[in-house]
Amino acid sequence: MNGEPDKDGYVRDGAAADWWATAVSHIEPGAIELRGRRVQDLIGTTTFTEMIWLLLRGDPPTAREAQLLEAALVAGVDHGPQAPSIAAARMAVTCGIGLNNAVATGVNLLGDVHGGAGQQCIELLTETVGLAAAGVSVGDAAEQVVARWRAEAHYFPGFGHRFHPLDPRRDPLLSLVDQAAADGIVEGAFVEAGRAVEALLNRGREGRRPIPMNIDGATAVIYAELGFPAPLARGLFVLSRSVGILAHAWEESGQGRRNKGPLPPSFLPARLPNH
Amino acid sequence: MNGEPDKDGYVRDGAAADWWATAVSHIEPGAIELRGRRVQDLIGTTTFTEMIWLLLRGDPPTAREAQLLEAALVAGVDHGPQAPSIAAARMAVTCGIGLNNAVATGVNLLGDVHGGAGQQCIELLTETVGLAAAGVSVGDAAEQVVARWRAEAHYFPGFGHRFHPLDPRRDPLLSLVDQAAADGIVEGAFVEAGRAVEALLNRGREGRRPIPMNIDGATAVIYAELGFPAPLARGLFVLSRSVGILAHAWEESGQGRRNKGPLPPSFLPARLPNH
Amino acid sequence: MNGEPDKDGYVRDGAAADWWATAVSHIEPGAIELRGRRVQDLIGTTTFTEMIWLLLRGDPPTAREAQLLEAALVAGVDHGPQAPSIAAARMAVTCGIGLNNAVATGVNLLGDVHGGAGQQCIELLTETVGLAAAGVSVGDAAEQVVARWRAEAHYFPGFGHRFHPLDPRRDPLLSLVDQAAADGIVEGAFVEAGRAVEALLNRGREGRRPIPMNIDGATAVIYAELGFPAPLARGLFVLSRSVGILAHAWEESGQGRRNKGPLPPSFLPARLPNH
Amino acid sequence: MNGEPDKDGYVRDGAAADWWATAVSHIEPGAIELRGRRVQDLIGTTTFTEMIWLLLRGDPPTAREAQLLEAALVAGVDHGPQAPSIAAARMAVTCGIGLNNAVATGVNLLGDVHGGAGQQCIELLTETVGLAAAGVSVGDAAEQVVARWRAEAHYFPGFGHRFHPLDPRRDPLLSLVDQAAADGIVEGAFVEAGRAVEALLNRGREGRRPIPMNIDGATAVIYAELGFPAPLARGLFVLSRSVGILAHAWEESGQGRRNKGPLPPSFLPARLPNH
Repeated sequence: MNGEPDKDGYVRDGAAADWWATAVSHIEPGAIELRGRRVQDLIGTTTFTEMIWLLLRGDPPTAREAQLLEAALVAGVDHGPQAPSIAAARMAVTCGIGLNNAVATGVNLLGDVHGGAGQQCIELLTETVGLAAAGVSVGDAAEQVVARWRAEAHYFPGFGHRFHPLDPRRDPLLSLVDQAAADGIVEGAFVEAGRAVEALLNRGREGRRPIPMNIDGATAVIYAELGFPAPLARGLFVLSRSVGILAHAWEESGQGRRNKGPLPPSFLPARLPNH
Repeated sequence: MNGEPDKDGYVRDGAAADWWATAVSHIEPGAIELRGRRVQDLIGTTTFTEMIWLLLRGDPPTAREAQLLEAALVAGVDHGPQAPSIAAARMAVTCGIGLNNAVATGVNLLGDVHGGAGQQCIELLTETVGLAAAGVSVGDAAEQVVARWRAEAHYFPGFGHRFHPLDPRRDPLLSLVDQAAADGIVEGAFVEAGRAVEALLNRGREGRRPIPMNIDGATAVIYAELGFPAPLARGLFVLSRSVGILAHAWEESGQGRRNKGPLPPSFLPARLPNH
Repeated sequence: MNGEPDKDGYVRDGAAADWWATAVSHIEPGAIELRGRRVQDLIGTTTFTEMIWLLLRGDPPTAREAQLLEAALVAGVDHGPQAPSIAAARMAVTCGIGLNNAVATGVNLLGDVHGGAGQQCIELLTETVGLAAAGVSVGDAAEQVVARWRAEAHYFPGFGHRFHPLDPRRDPLLSLVDQAAADGIVEGAFVEAGRAVEALLNRGREGRRPIPMNIDGATAVIYAELGFPAPLARGLFVLSRSVGILAHAWEESGQGRRNKGPLPPSFLPARLPNH
Repeated sequence: MNGEPDKDGYVRDGAAADWWATAVSHIEPGAIELRGRRVQDLIGTTTFTEMIWLLLRGDPPTAREAQLLEAALVAGVDHGPQAPSIAAARMAVTCGIGLNNAVATGVNLLGDVHGGAGQQCIELLTETVGLAAAGVSVGDAAEQVVARWRAEAHYFPGFGHRFHPLDPRRDPLLSLVDQAAADGIVEGAFVEAGRAVEALLNRGREGRRPIPMNIDGATAVIYAELGFPAPLARGLFVLSRSVGILAHAWEESGQGRRNKGPLPPSFLPARLPNH
């Protein structure tokens, strides 16, 4: 059941070695393979974005696929210190912990509400695309799916923003998808579904604040077009937002504050009644 | 002292708005600026690696600088599930927490010992380069610096590996730095210092296991040549290793384990005496 | 809208002070109030467990209530290094991060699967108690609730253990609840419901491995009898298990390992096929 | 080298079982031992505070020792939402992550600056007590130690507070130590050293704001008198402050905010210049 050491002293099989079996990487003395490729063949020939794809998917992307992924990763890096992930990381770095601990603090906050909308939006779009593939018109498919989500969920993932009337990241991201679809790089079914949902949400709202696709929606469209499963929408957002978290933590670490709270020290939080 | 809302209801000055002042990004309704650049101008024109540089440094890199950074980021993404950061993230994802929480768990472990060697190595190389710039020969500078570190520290950051006789990432990374130095993209002082330290550490070890520069050392050389301050060596490693952490957590999440421990469930940890 | 500093320079009202309003504590220069009580009146007169209750609930417990809570907190402190929370904390502390970061790493893993069963079990018992209060016999109520949970969920929270045939913490905890119910300290409805569910799960299993109430179930009974809402079952477990996490991290920190992986360094994880 | 399964299928020895060896707890099917004691013998007979001591130290405390530890744990539970640990946990819980993840987020911030002063203060007091034990008067010992710390460190751990002129937790904690020393429960050397350091720091400050011992100093005195090593001052503070972190996260979770930032949403952080 349990492996015995080989002549070099390494245990290569048995229950414990199997418990940690993986296809992501394999390490031997003097050798590192990532998805079956020697690391020395990847360094200098592969971009960071291509490496993200390779490690998550098992095979490298085409150049055009990589460009589309790159655009989504670039779009999400930062949204200012009012985002709880960024604020928490900035406070963290003033508490005498490592820069890695500060980044981890921020990433830990990218949960269902802060970073999960993309994942939910892919599920919603996948449902819509599935109905359309079964012969329903995209508009009708969107109508069915939106009705069901509205009945079940309080928030509609990927559309609308409490702050931006129109998220400035929407148009450039959708343009890139349109171009990729026109060039046959991706199929275009998800961007079509996304626009159908957006149109539906805005029907009859003339004169009121529109509900455009937001960053979670636009990146969800890209990730879905590229074939990433829904949970990786959050995973990819984590990689993207980590850049902003690091940049903010690093800036804060140079400003000399100690134990930075959410408000300047002269502010005293108000009292709530005890019950 | 405290700002009042403007006609649109936004408070733009005063103690609280100043408490969170930043140069990294600025958000207005309908507008997102990253380091003073409109996000819509960055999407589709900027690679993810260029964005990392821009957010951390304030200005974009040249294409050749970006390539060198890219190589260092690619080299560090993963080193297998025996790394505690990777193992912890794989266990985490089986405990019923989000993928972001699993990644945060792994990143939290990239501390002084697991991810900090690059930072310390830059300090060591900076000291060597500084002495050399003051007129000492690089060999003598390395000798002084190595002697001092050996007297003070138990571990020598950036050189030697308990597992790899020669880290397969060393040569391709140093080749890229050499080429960049030859082309005038970087100065080359840090790679020279690194090789001088390496030569010194191996002097008189003929016939014994060599102590080559490792991944922390080789990436430290790149980050230092590119002008990143020492603490960002850890920060950049965090961004790089996050990719492996995510890929492993994602793979593990598809394998159906619940509450994965470090050993198969049939293993019972041994007893230590109580005192 | 925004408060102005008073004569001592403190801002006590306005939008920012209100944003952080709380009933848990109030701090003034020279004064600390916890749930409206002066901290100096609590030190030396209040046990740690009573303080946990006071801070979570707003009022202090009676002595007997505190004893029951104490038993539940004591029961959950540790379950050995095969628990992912404990293992992750032990690995973390060898990576050059603080003892607090190591504890945080462990606590981060107490998710829906690792620490969430108590919360779910309270929901299940609350449902059962509710039906019984509406006039259904407890046995019938348990039958309805169990049937519904079995139809919807793969795992049944609070009952059965993959390792212990009978969890040694079950009997002493239930005895304490029985005694408290006999003495009129708690009502006893949840322990009755718990036993009814347990009886039902074991009906017809004669000769097979029984499915007894486990630690999550037994502590859920206590927390529910004491009136804690379901999500606090996880919160209280976090406080309890933090003790074991700290003790293990502290022990590990004295053993001199660096970058401890899940297996001894001579083990090489097996390969999985790439697709 | 590697253990083989026994007749019940359990692997009890070999390299992997040894890798996770511990004295803290031992788990067998149907049995849980904590520090060599059966868990069923501890439930109902041991307070939570006694269990903390037992798990960290290997043996249980006396009743009076437990009371002193209890007072220190009670004193540190909370200091309001301006503490970054508390604020981060409150923001975290609005982001769609578990209550355990929110607590972990707060605990992660209790680093060298936020929670580390107690540890440093014990080191300082130990040095003072050591000199005094070697025959120097306590006053002279304090003078030597303070002079050295002031020369090396910018902050003086355990004394002074930017907010409280006199920390209301100081006097009740010191009174309890005095009483314990009078009763022979503890030796009293650390409280004597602490007062000597305090007197020295305030010499010649008549008419200026005094520098009294703060909560970190007063609890450091207690932990040191009880024989806890310095790093556990931080560990015990983590257990104590976790209570406040949980209470605040729980309160916040009932207030319905989503993605709570550090300031109300109408505040726009100011711009810093890019370089």
